[in-house]
Amino acid sequence: MAEGLIMTSRVRLARNLKRIMFPHKLSSEQGKKLVSEVEEAFYSDVFREGDYSTLKLWQTDKLSQTSYFEKRLISNNMINNSSKGAVILSNDDSESIMINEEDHIRIQCIKTGYNLEDAFRSANRIDDQLEKNLDFAFDEKYGYLTACPTNVGTGMRASVMIHLPFIATDNKVEESLYALSKLGMAIRGIYGEGSKVTGSIYQISNQITLGMTEQETLANLKAVINKIIIHETRAREVAYKNYKYEIEDRAARSLGILKSAVLLTSSECLKLLSDVRLGIEMGIIKTVSIGTVDALIMDVQPATIQKQVGKNLTKEEINLARAKLVKRKIRNKGR
Amino acid sequence: MAEGLIMTSRVRLARNLKRIMFPHKLSSEQGKKLVSEVEEAFYSDVFREGDYSTLKLWQTDKLSQTSYFEKRLISNNMINNSSKGAVILSNDDSESIMINEEDHIRIQCIKTGYNLEDAFRSANRIDDQLEKNLDFAFDEKYGYLTACPTNVGTGMRASVMIHLPFIATDNKVEESLYALSKLGMAIRGIYGEGSKVTGSIYQISNQITLGMTEQETLANLKAVINKIIIHETRAREVAYKNYKYEIEDRAARSLGILKSAVLLTSSECLKLLSDVRLGIEMGIIKTVSIGTVDALIMDVQPATIQKQVGKNLTKEEINLARAKLVKRKIRNKGR
Repeated sequence: MAEGLIMTSRVRLARNLKRIMFPHKLSSEQGKKLVSEVEEAFYSDVFREGDYSTLKLWQTDKLSQTSYFEKRLISNNMINNSSKGAVILSNDDSESIMINEEDHIRIQCIKTGYNLEDAFRSANRIDDQLEKNLDFAFDEKYGYLTACPTNVGTGMRASVMIHLPFIATDNKVEESLYALSKLGMAIRGIYGEGSKVTGSIYQISNQITLGMTEQETLANLKAVINKIIIHETRAREVAYKNYKYEIEDRAARSLGILKSAVLLTSSECLKLLSDVRLGIEMGIIKTVSIGTVDALIMDVQPATIQKQVGKNLTKEEINLARAKLVKRKIRNKGR
Repeated sequence: MAEGLIMTSRVRLARNLKRIMFPHKLSSEQGKKLVSEVEEAFYSDVFREGDYSTLKLWQTDKLSQTSYFEKRLISNNMINNSSKGAVILSNDDSESIMINEEDHIRIQCIKTGYNLEDAFRSANRIDDQLEKNLDFAFDEKYGYLTACPTNVGTGMRASVMIHLPFIATDNKVEESLYALSKLGMAIRGIYGEGSKVTGSIYQISNQITLGMTEQETLANLKAVINKIIIHETRAREVAYKNYKYEIEDRAARSLGILKSAVLLTSSECLKLLSDVRLGIEMGIIKTVSIGTVDALIMDVQPATIQKQVGKNLTKEEINLARAKLVKRKIRNKGR
């Protein structure tokens, strides 16, 4: 059950180069030069072009940028810096190095499921490679220096995307939020700070980067997550005991609607996918895999839909295309 | 299209015997005696036991009575008169003779589709047979005498059950109601006077029984129905032009929900069946027949569900059984 609740685990490391101004102060030219330097430092025997590729935002259109954002491969900050921002991406999209985001370098590794260690290991590997060839701004007392003081220290933000439909309906989110902030953790919507919660999917992350090691931070975060999982699991058990058929009904008819709808808005679609995911997690739905649902949660976003179709669409056309995509994927069970 | 909108056509003839008090004044014993007399008059070379059977309400339980009511085979009045009420029923349920309803005899014939003439012919045939052997209260000036003066004359009420989802959403029902009453017609819910409209299904019937022949009444009723059909059809065409995908979406997801739900309340079920029926009528849904939907509209009623299961159920159990029944019938396409 625990595994099922967590969609992805993510570790992000913020790094900056000595003697270069932070990105927002760099001209486009200076920024592009930095991109070349990072590329040079990264591509090597270990990290080969072909397995990774560089996406220069100034060479992409708005639609592609938004789609990368929807897939969490780049941040909103990057889009605003698109004249100098770039990202080095692994072929499977699980590893990325954002260049000229808020910081010069943001290494980000995303693994499916509850795999914070794996994500950290991958991020570390990239960090080591870059550190070999670049001169990082590092202070013996404070650690890595960053554009925003909240990242100084380890420069690490670790997080999981977690599916909490019952805690969510239970009005316990507010409560959890408060408790988490006291523990130096934050619970937020899927797109980070200030983003709306959709489909009962939350992001739980560490807030403190100073005064503890990466391993301590991960251990603290995991302790908190494990507690939340226990809460959610208990809430489910109680609910299922009292509302067995209602819960089965919600899962089954959500799947029925996803299989049959002609129009689907983004928010309804995420809500239905959340209900289906819950159905799978609780063993009610057996004909669709969690992987299919999770892939769809990313793929049904408006820009990603338009990118897939290959052109700009009206709102209604997007809703039509979304319903078609979902139908095809769900009926094919994700093939 | 016109054929599709009309679910059933019904003709009912009210008859009373001379020199016998109206049913509400009869003792149980007197009532039962009347039942025997009607049976004797009816069963013959033309109407044979085996093709028809008599259902004596005092020999049935409450659940069966309600189920017969839900299927429109007996009236609410009959249930209140169950100590002396009976009904002679054809095996296919399309012809019935209620005994000791408001009147001594109510012949009722229901045909599928737009078949008022057929229904009238069948009712007439039964009427002729009964009149051969019974002494009907008939006045040269007024025609057939009935317990309620609104039925005096032909004693005939002809009606259709018609599916009008667009006139219904169009707020034109009020308008039609007013126009119809001026024409001596009434538009009502599926269970007659005072009954709620469910699933956009209406009953349109003549109100006047005095001063015109049966044929004139039928002709008038048909003229009104044809106009309503034109209104509904136009409303659909306009709506489909403007909201093609929304209409397709509603039909498709309603079918999706019927195929997948675990719990279905009666009113939601009728609403969904109405949407699916509309989808079939408009050529959007091709995998389910109108016959299947119409049969379900009758079969999903609470008492009928319980009768099928064979015992009294809780509300939740009924909703569960209803969802199961619908799923089976819709997936089997009504076999």
